[in-house]
Amino acid sequence: MASEGAEPGSIRPGGRTARVRESVLRAAGDALAEHGFDRLDLADVARRAEVGKTTVYRRWSTPTGLVADLLDDMAEQSSPRTATGSLIDDLRANARLVATTLSDPRQGPLFKSVIAAATCDPRTAGALHRFYAVRVEEWSGCVTEAVERGELPAGTNAGEVIRAVSAPLYYRLLAGGGPLDEAAADRAAEAAAAAARAGVYVD
Amino acid sequence: MASEGAEPGSIRPGGRTARVRESVLRAAGDALAEHGFDRLDLADVARRAEVGKTTVYRRWSTPTGLVADLLDDMAEQSSPRTATGSLIDDLRANARLVATTLSDPRQGPLFKSVIAAATCDPRTAGALHRFYAVRVEEWSGCVTEAVERGELPAGTNAGEVIRAVSAPLYYRLLAGGGPLDEAAADRAAEAAAAAARAGVYVD
Repeated sequence: MASEGAEPGSIRPGGRTARVRESVLRAAGDALAEHGFDRLDLADVARRAEVGKTTVYRRWSTPTGLVADLLDDMAEQSSPRTATGSLIDDLRANARLVATTLSDPRQGPLFKSVIAAATCDPRTAGALHRFYAVRVEEWSGCVTEAVERGELPAGTNAGEVIRAVSAPLYYRLLAGGGPLDEAAADRAAEAAAAAARAGVYVD
Repeated sequence: MASEGAEPGSIRPGGRTARVRESVLRAAGDALAEHGFDRLDLADVARRAEVGKTTVYRRWSTPTGLVADLLDDMAEQSSPRTATGSLIDDLRANARLVATTLSDPRQGPLFKSVIAAATCDPRTAGALHRFYAVRVEEWSGCVTEAVERGELPAGTNAGEVIRAVSAPLYYRLLAGGGPLDEAAADRAAEAAAAAARAGVYVD
C-alpha cells in the first residue's frame, strides 16, 4: 500500500478505504453523467475507478446503493454557504451556485440522472431528499440572520425560502421555460426575497 | 364499425381512429403510472387497450413516440384556466390544480415517469416542454388581465409568473421538502403574486 511519503502514524485509519471510495464515487458520477442511471453498471464503475470488481460489489452491492452513497458524499463535500451580511446578496450567491451546478456539463446530467432514478426508487429518493435537506440546512443561516437583522419578518421559515430559490431553477432544468443563466438565477433570488419580505413564508 | 346511433353523416371522419388513439393513450398513461417509462412496452399497451399490436406499432413505432403523443393529447385535452377577476384567486386555483394533479395516485406517478424519461430522451423532453408551454400559455391570461386591472406592473412576464406558481410544487414532487397539500399550493400562489407585485417578473 502506498504510504505517499507520510511519516509513520500520520496516515489516518481507513486512508486506503477512503481513497477507494473517492475513486469509485468519482467514477460513478462520471458514468451517471454520461449514460444515466439505467445504464449504471458496477463492473464498469470498477473499471473506470481502477478498483477490483469484488471490492465494488462487496461494498456497494447495487447501483442504487452506489448512488445513495454518492449523494451522501456530495452532501458531506458540498461547499459552505455565503455570508455577505445582506439577504439578497446571500440568496443571489445561492441561486448562482445552483444555476452553475445545474448547467455544468458533468453536474447537470448527473443531477438529472439522479432525479430520474429517484422517481422510481424509494432508496434513491430518500438519499436525494437527504442531500437537499443538508444543502437547505447549510443555507438557512442566510434567512435566520436576515430575520435577526430585521430584514425579514419573525417566524419566516428559512428552509422554505431556500427551497424557493432553487425551485424555479430546477423547473427550468426539467420542465423548460428558458436557460439556466445568471439572469434566471438573480430573478429566482429576487422572487424568493420579495415573497419572504411580504411574509409569505411565515409559518 | 359501430355507428353509436348517430344520424348518417354525423360521424366525423377518423372517428374510429380517434377512439383507438384514446384507448391506446389511456392504456399508455396507466402503464406509465404503474411501471414507469423504462418498462413501457407497446405490446403491453396494445393488450391493455384491446387494440391490435400491429396498429400500435404502425402508428406509434416506439415508447418514445407514444409518450410524445400522450403529452400532445394531454395538452389538447387539458382544462381551460380559471378567471375569477382577482390575481391571487386565479393563481391559487392554478396552484391547487397543479398540486392536485401531482398528488393524484395516477397522474403523480405519470408525471414523474415522463419527467424521468425526458431527462435522457430529447424527443420526450421536447414533448414535455411543449405540454408545459401550452399550459403556461393557457394560464397567462390571469397575469395579463391583472396587469390591465393595475394589480401588477406593466411589462410583467406572464409566463414567468405562471411557471413560478408551479416550480415549488414540482420541487416538492422531485426534491422533497414537504407534502403537496393545499397549504403548499396557496403558499406557491402567494409567493408568485408577491414577487410579481414587487416587479420581479418585469422584463
